[in-house]
Amino acid sequence: MTIKFFLDEKEMPKQWYNLAADLPSPMQPPLGPDGKPISPDMLAPVFPMNLIEQEVSQERWIDIPEEIMKLLSIWRPSPLQRAVRLEQALGTPARIYFKNESVSPPGSHKPNTAVAQAWYNKQFGIKRLTTETGAGQWGSALAFACSLIGLECKVYMVRISFDQKPFRKVMMHTWGAECIPSPSTDTKAGQEVLDRDPDTPGSLGIAISEAIEDAVTDETGKTRYTLGSVLNHVMLHQTVIGLEAKKQLKLAGEKNVDVIIGCAGGGSNFAGLSFPFASDKINGAKIEIIPVEPASCPTLTRAPFVYDHGDIAKMTPLLPMHSLGHDFVPAPIHAGGLRYHGMSPLVSQGVVEGLFTPMAIQQLECFEAALMFARTEGMIIAPETSHAVAATIRKAREAKEEGKEKVILFNLSGHGLMDLNGYESFIHGKLADYVPTQEEVERALKVMNGYPRPEIRKTGKW
Amino acid sequence: MTIKFFLDEKEMPKQWYNLAADLPSPMQPPLGPDGKPISPDMLAPVFPMNLIEQEVSQERWIDIPEEIMKLLSIWRPSPLQRAVRLEQALGTPARIYFKNESVSPPGSHKPNTAVAQAWYNKQFGIKRLTTETGAGQWGSALAFACSLIGLECKVYMVRISFDQKPFRKVMMHTWGAECIPSPSTDTKAGQEVLDRDPDTPGSLGIAISEAIEDAVTDETGKTRYTLGSVLNHVMLHQTVIGLEAKKQLKLAGEKNVDVIIGCAGGGSNFAGLSFPFASDKINGAKIEIIPVEPASCPTLTRAPFVYDHGDIAKMTPLLPMHSLGHDFVPAPIHAGGLRYHGMSPLVSQGVVEGLFTPMAIQQLECFEAALMFARTEGMIIAPETSHAVAATIRKAREAKEEGKEKVILFNLSGHGLMDLNGYESFIHGKLADYVPTQEEVERALKVMNGYPRPEIRKTGKW
Repeated sequence: MTIKFFLDEKEMPKQWYNLAADLPSPMQPPLGPDGKPISPDMLAPVFPMNLIEQEVSQERWIDIPEEIMKLLSIWRPSPLQRAVRLEQALGTPARIYFKNESVSPPGSHKPNTAVAQAWYNKQFGIKRLTTETGAGQWGSALAFACSLIGLECKVYMVRISFDQKPFRKVMMHTWGAECIPSPSTDTKAGQEVLDRDPDTPGSLGIAISEAIEDAVTDETGKTRYTLGSVLNHVMLHQTVIGLEAKKQLKLAGEKNVDVIIGCAGGGSNFAGLSFPFASDKINGAKIEIIPVEPASCPTLTRAPFVYDHGDIAKMTPLLPMHSLGHDFVPAPIHAGGLRYHGMSPLVSQGVVEGLFTPMAIQQLECFEAALMFARTEGMIIAPETSHAVAATIRKAREAKEEGKEKVILFNLSGHGLMDLNGYESFIHGKLADYVPTQEEVERALKVMNGYPRPEIRKTGKW
Repeated sequence: MTIKFFLDEKEMPKQWYNLAADLPSPMQPPLGPDGKPISPDMLAPVFPMNLIEQEVSQERWIDIPEEIMKLLSIWRPSPLQRAVRLEQALGTPARIYFKNESVSPPGSHKPNTAVAQAWYNKQFGIKRLTTETGAGQWGSALAFACSLIGLECKVYMVRISFDQKPFRKVMMHTWGAECIPSPSTDTKAGQEVLDRDPDTPGSLGIAISEAIEDAVTDETGKTRYTLGSVLNHVMLHQTVIGLEAKKQLKLAGEKNVDVIIGCAGGGSNFAGLSFPFASDKINGAKIEIIPVEPASCPTLTRAPFVYDHGDIAKMTPLLPMHSLGHDFVPAPIHAGGLRYHGMSPLVSQGVVEGLFTPMAIQQLECFEAALMFARTEGMIIAPETSHAVAATIRKAREAKEEGKEKVILFNLSGHGLMDLNGYESFIHGKLADYVPTQEEVERALKVMNGYPRPEIRKTGKW
């Protein structure tokens, strides 16, 4: 029985898919400090105009430039694999597939957008990129992309992950990038946080503030900021994952897929796999599409759909999204890439409209799932990915109880070879679950008092 | 232009290729303590009989059991990739291909034999396996295989690597194996070394002694020892690499290959790629086949072809091989997997007969090559693999000088994500070259004074 399905490079998608064109309600615009929609050129100090155009595009399909295709072909198309041994261990009638994004040199799905963003910046005449990173997947991916394309790169890495995953910075150095822990004294935003709380573990929200400040204060005008998730153009670049997976499921002989699963921090790996299938769902297909988040950072399952800043220092525009409030500092779980107070507006809106049905899972269940995956399928996955695997196991057990031959597809967003500290702690019983109390959530949400609320029609169709 | 060449699982080789059947001279037998050839059943306390049969087989082709094929298909066939961006950076007319063995879950070629050895042991009724590991690639691979097949596993890891690469042991734990630094106090052999030299960095030779002692002293008789390199059956299992590569070169449109390159410690990744091509060379093809070793452990380039023990405590039979003497402790280079005093008898004999033309390269040139590879091809390779890349760069530059369109194929034996300490040290200028003086080599060779010498006809044909 074949368990891996490869596509030839010639079959790589030639266009990205833009879910914004198909959502029942139009996307709500980002708002400026005055509460009014911001125009594309207000973003120009932060992003190059060619990416801003993608950010606001309503086109359903956007051509992938040939040079980006060439860079992607270093590791793409990624394999679709069937988890036969996991199925057997669970005794489930479900057929479990995963899209293996860990095969990229930095080890995750992140380079799909990193090479695209670096390429568009280079086209626009930019010389240097800044960014933040949580677990280090995104920072490594951007360092990798900048190395291939020829740009300078500075990465602000959330301090707790910087300490937990020391080798991530060496990867970035190997690709020629600079990487420092955030909050840092290199920016005003970082310095302010350190003054208030010298022992802070840091957060993605803080690191974003630092990276934006670095970009917009460069007087040469040749530095721009990049974000590894959340924004529309990032979701767009990731859709190659789902577009490839559709072709590969056909190769595997599957006519339908019942459940699509991806972990969700800022939303990009979930979006990358699911959006092309969401398009089918909008057109009538019956598919359960599940973003999985950590119970310690329950953005989609416990936070409202609001207008909020993407960062703690309120340097980003207000984005329409599920948010726990820009001051929320998530518990120090090992899935650093999921420690984010907000969520992609596109994913958020898909949840509001009922297209996606989110799930929150605790850290211990996720590591248990990761260990089971390692001992059946042989692969050591990232703690972020373990959320998708835990949800997959839940759904496969459900299929067993129901006696249904479901087809489940999840996104294996990255390997865990840089996250072995987490495995060691789990194996030795040193990890804990964290769930914010209702009071903590409410307190965090207060920072958005008085903020405008996005208006959106709930279709109730799904 | 296509740069990755995949094979369908259905095209996986169904038989292993045994070079022993085609070498001009017959292999010299291993010798016992009395200097007489040892019989297969003298090896029975150490290895199961089904593997001993493979060890001494003269059959050209040996069937791969279907269940082993299934396990291999978790990651095989591995991709053949073309290093276009490296070619461009070098400005060479050579076409450079590599077989990417880093795609296995443990990250190297080692699982090719680990799953085979674990499977044969399980068939033979064995419950527990012991082994040594240098850089940790082999130990991880065996832990992975034992996890999939259901065997207990204990790994003695060379101390310097245990310290340099702390996460390797966590990988082994994740797959359920035990891993301790060697020399250890768990064995008599380890204790003796520690008594003599408490600060020893350890060596593969010492760790082998410990793992064998552990296996043969288990009174239940259900423990056996496994070796990740050197032995004939290990080379055999690795030949899937070269057999796949041949088919993939055809897919890439190449009719001939001019140069085959693999790094060589015990010889297994080199053998895996090169033996199927060596068969062509024996039958008249013009191919340069290069095993690359560290200049700090110059087994093939500076040591004689002799009978020597595979381990420091002289627990193994005498093997006919190039050896620096079983007491030789190589300098603490980062390519831990190449720190071995001996060499596969099959590879050694191939060198004596002129089939293979070895090359020795220093650590700094290798890391320089690895950095160039990371910044052109995007992949961070193992320090062991960097020897193959450094040799590839030398040959590609040679092709440029000669203006020849050569086809070069090297084995990318593993990724370097567990070896980032080495990269960090190199980037910060903290690494050094090590070359033993002629006097040091001669002193090390003295331990073999009075040992029998293998007799072998040098064909002088190549």
